[in-house]
Amino acid sequence: MELMKMISQLGEIDAKMYGTDFLLTWEKNDDQIKATLLTAAILKKLYESDYSCKLFKSGLAVSNFRDNSTRTRFSFASASNLLGLAVQDLNESTSQIAHGETVRETANMISFLTEVIGIRDDMFLGAGNKYMREVAEALDDGHKKGVLHQRPTIVNLQCDIDHPTQAMADLSHLINYYGGVDKLKGKKIAMTWAYSPSYGKPLSVPQGIIGLMTRFGMEVSLAHPEGYNLIPDTLKVSEKNAKKSGGSFSVVNTMEEAFKGADIVYPKSWAPYSVMGKRTDLLMKKDTEGLKTLEKECLANNAKYKNWECTEKMMKLTKGGKALYMHCLPADISGVSCKEGEVSASVFEKYRIETYKEAGYKPYIIAAMMVLGKFKNAARTLSGLTRKRFAD
Amino acid sequence: MELMKMISQLGEIDAKMYGTDFLLTWEKNDDQIKATLLTAAILKKLYESDYSCKLFKSGLAVSNFRDNSTRTRFSFASASNLLGLAVQDLNESTSQIAHGETVRETANMISFLTEVIGIRDDMFLGAGNKYMREVAEALDDGHKKGVLHQRPTIVNLQCDIDHPTQAMADLSHLINYYGGVDKLKGKKIAMTWAYSPSYGKPLSVPQGIIGLMTRFGMEVSLAHPEGYNLIPDTLKVSEKNAKKSGGSFSVVNTMEEAFKGADIVYPKSWAPYSVMGKRTDLLMKKDTEGLKTLEKECLANNAKYKNWECTEKMMKLTKGGKALYMHCLPADISGVSCKEGEVSASVFEKYRIETYKEAGYKPYIIAAMMVLGKFKNAARTLSGLTRKRFAD
Amino acid sequence: MELMKMISQLGEIDAKMYGTDFLLTWEKNDDQIKATLLTAAILKKLYESDYSCKLFKSGLAVSNFRDNSTRTRFSFASASNLLGLAVQDLNESTSQIAHGETVRETANMISFLTEVIGIRDDMFLGAGNKYMREVAEALDDGHKKGVLHQRPTIVNLQCDIDHPTQAMADLSHLINYYGGVDKLKGKKIAMTWAYSPSYGKPLSVPQGIIGLMTRFGMEVSLAHPEGYNLIPDTLKVSEKNAKKSGGSFSVVNTMEEAFKGADIVYPKSWAPYSVMGKRTDLLMKKDTEGLKTLEKECLANNAKYKNWECTEKMMKLTKGGKALYMHCLPADISGVSCKEGEVSASVFEKYRIETYKEAGYKPYIIAAMMVLGKFKNAARTLSGLTRKRFAD
Repeated sequence: MELMKMISQLGEIDAKMYGTDFLLTWEKNDDQIKATLLTAAILKKLYESDYSCKLFKSGLAVSNFRDNSTRTRFSFASASNLLGLAVQDLNESTSQIAHGETVRETANMISFLTEVIGIRDDMFLGAGNKYMREVAEALDDGHKKGVLHQRPTIVNLQCDIDHPTQAMADLSHLINYYGGVDKLKGKKIAMTWAYSPSYGKPLSVPQGIIGLMTRFGMEVSLAHPEGYNLIPDTLKVSEKNAKKSGGSFSVVNTMEEAFKGADIVYPKSWAPYSVMGKRTDLLMKKDTEGLKTLEKECLANNAKYKNWECTEKMMKLTKGGKALYMHCLPADISGVSCKEGEVSASVFEKYRIETYKEAGYKPYIIAAMMVLGKFKNAARTLSGLTRKRFAD
Repeated sequence: MELMKMISQLGEIDAKMYGTDFLLTWEKNDDQIKATLLTAAILKKLYESDYSCKLFKSGLAVSNFRDNSTRTRFSFASASNLLGLAVQDLNESTSQIAHGETVRETANMISFLTEVIGIRDDMFLGAGNKYMREVAEALDDGHKKGVLHQRPTIVNLQCDIDHPTQAMADLSHLINYYGGVDKLKGKKIAMTWAYSPSYGKPLSVPQGIIGLMTRFGMEVSLAHPEGYNLIPDTLKVSEKNAKKSGGSFSVVNTMEEAFKGADIVYPKSWAPYSVMGKRTDLLMKKDTEGLKTLEKECLANNAKYKNWECTEKMMKLTKGGKALYMHCLPADISGVSCKEGEVSASVFEKYRIETYKEAGYKPYIIAAMMVLGKFKNAARTLSGLTRKRFAD
Repeated sequence: MELMKMISQLGEIDAKMYGTDFLLTWEKNDDQIKATLLTAAILKKLYESDYSCKLFKSGLAVSNFRDNSTRTRFSFASASNLLGLAVQDLNESTSQIAHGETVRETANMISFLTEVIGIRDDMFLGAGNKYMREVAEALDDGHKKGVLHQRPTIVNLQCDIDHPTQAMADLSHLINYYGGVDKLKGKKIAMTWAYSPSYGKPLSVPQGIIGLMTRFGMEVSLAHPEGYNLIPDTLKVSEKNAKKSGGSFSVVNTMEEAFKGADIVYPKSWAPYSVMGKRTDLLMKKDTEGLKTLEKECLANNAKYKNWECTEKMMKLTKGGKALYMHCLPADISGVSCKEGEVSASVFEKYRIETYKEAGYKPYIIAAMMVLGKFKNAARTLSGLTRKRFAD
């Protein structure tokens, strides 16, 4: 049986993820990435075969969204529910955190019976991932000193540096689309900036994509207008990964160059690096006027690059004219969600259902991160689920 | 055993509701209405006999309230919880929907592990039910194309046209009050407008009541001041139903006429039809000034009909002076929740506990809609519950 | 086995708490306090020994927070989840309650399948506890008259008079810290006011502490500046308790005097009694200007007592210079969360982990109140849990 084969495969990986958080894909070794992908696939199969996946007898899954979200919020809720956890929102606007409470105290106060904490904190460059590590340290301390009976696992639901649940879901989509992770070798993926009439979009998606896809022998081509560069460290990570995996990583200056011969295209808007830095400063200072001016400048600058749009014509440049279009959604679709945007309506419509499927891997990826962080022997634990099928 | 008899009765109905939504009672045939009432009664009995009703091993019940609500929100939460689902709110103000995301995308994004979606969208005439159908189409498409493993069932928690969970709960109350659905034949029910100092109340409750109660041989009398007419189509539905069931449906011009000889009275405020239409236009245009003017005009117009109040004197007109008073709650009680309102304090107090009981059927009605939409053989599924009693 | 011994001990107490609420500790007799502490300890042990504590097959736990909260909100959510209940927030700002609906109606409307209602209502002196009793009466009435199949238990999550879940968690902490409730006899606890740059903090924590700790033969010393007195009735309760338990209760005028020779210190800010009274009046009248003036006056008055700070020097006055520092959190820490506050950074840091542990008892205390209110024979019910260990 295929399910059993997958579980036994998982049992052969010594992933050593028990008791750890999932904060950046490039902090995880290849076995850990493999174990996460495999666990997600096993959970998906279990669910679709009508097995119960309730591994927890009870427990909270705290969701801490410091930025708006629909799809990641629902993915986190679905993953938690699938495993038997109840979601409890930590809503800062209605809690005492807003009144200056220290991070380490709150981290402990919400964790007495908590198994998982999911955090989205992607607004401030230099702050989001740092915050997650502060929470992690506080939990370590609380657990070591007997405050917490168990140490909750933190799942990064998007920070300023990486968006690991998105990148891993995207990777799952590619593996399924092409029929195996080995099929990715040599495939060219174009991660390119695209025009959007919006402002302040995080850099974490492109950074997450180049940081992860370079590990599988792919030819990763990053393209963006001048000034829209990413955090320098994420480029170094991608270069190193590409070298090790036998793939390549290059930065080019036009969407056209990136699209040329591409198997996969990922056109998506993000804010200029320097603007995000200034924005953080202004937000910290609560400089409303400065923020307004910055937004105006930034939007004016964006407007210079309206030709960075994924059109039918642009798609013709890709391999056989039929590269796979990807997006983390929601996309800014020209003539649909905005006047001029990231992608033309006809291109998007052609790949619409594929982007939905792409998103559909996220609940299982998040659940896999939870399972591997919280169960010492995930393969044995998952195997236990196959013994009792839910009768309906 | 009575419970077993009820379940076996349900097994004899071929309701064909699996995989369908519950949007309007008049889209459901008599068998479907009967199956829903019976399933609700079975679930109530199971719950009160201390059986577990957890039919789902896991899964989300998405609640999408585009208007305020306490009682329907809690009814939906109770129904979901009873069946083993976890409620996840789709809160548009804190989600990306507010940023122009298309309905069909969101419908899929929230549904990967979702079993039920409850929607309240009653603010805009011509929009609420339409929105539900757009969501339904998107779910159909997503399910057909392999995005969704299962197709969530939509439950209409109040739209611009109907309030099916309310009307069905009201019907359950009447069946219990009179001791059987056959006892409703020939009973006169007065669905009348009543004065309230409020503005913009939806038309869905009176429309739901006349559309449903006309199916059971009742004499349904609708009364309202000039201008407070309902959506014309709902009157046609009611006429057709009355003819078929051997009852009657009439529209009269005074509360007195409707109350005369009535067995049941349902005095409730609603907005004038034309005002609701204008209001939708103004809201779409975000015309704040226009809305203020419209509200002022409407309240002034309302004030002309302050004598449309369910008083002791008015009640004397009913059969034997002791018709059953009904309300979906909260009622505008004169001298209690407002200066002058829908019902006098003494009339309301006499029937207060009955209106609470009336509301008490709603969680089971909603749960019944979920069960019939999600389980192919509801009778067999429910029967399975009786085998394992919860030991406490 | 220790767990079995604890359960059998509980079985010997005839607590008579089934069907009752937990509103004030001084309404509970010694057996009831003992049963609550013991049940909390049993639940903690069960949880930490990996037994499932799901006593409810389904059901809602309604959380009604009329004031902000992080830690109590999470404690309530944890307790509910531990026992198998799903939390449903009653959020007044998004519900029809805000529109004048009567308390008794709402109480019934949210309770059809509800097992527990947790209420925090601590803003208005003279109002919070009263509100809880109104809800309780409505539930009694609804249950008696057949509206509600079961009568939900109310847990006071902080009112204007008492904060019983806090005081009971604090007591659990002391019992564990000293190794038994009998060890508390003769220990001196200083419940003292402390300076904070904030305004309008409720009186319920000090009132709860003096009302509960006086029952165990402790020497309870209350200290506060002139004008910061507590509700007179709570002093009477404390005096009576102290007399009965063989302890003592005294009110002194300086922090120094209270700290002298103390085994335990609980320095915490609260608002002046008369200010809280005036504030309620102004809030009722929606007198925004009056409220601003009152706040200004009150903060200016507070500032006269900045020397009421728990410093290293102050701690030297305590028994052996090493009294146990307690706080309900979050504390106003000088130089950390504010410029000048309740406690110096070095004192707080020394006891930080202890205050976290103190907070850690709260989920179990709340769960114990739920169990004793909802199960006729709690000992037998809990004993049932030990038969099936959760296999993971």
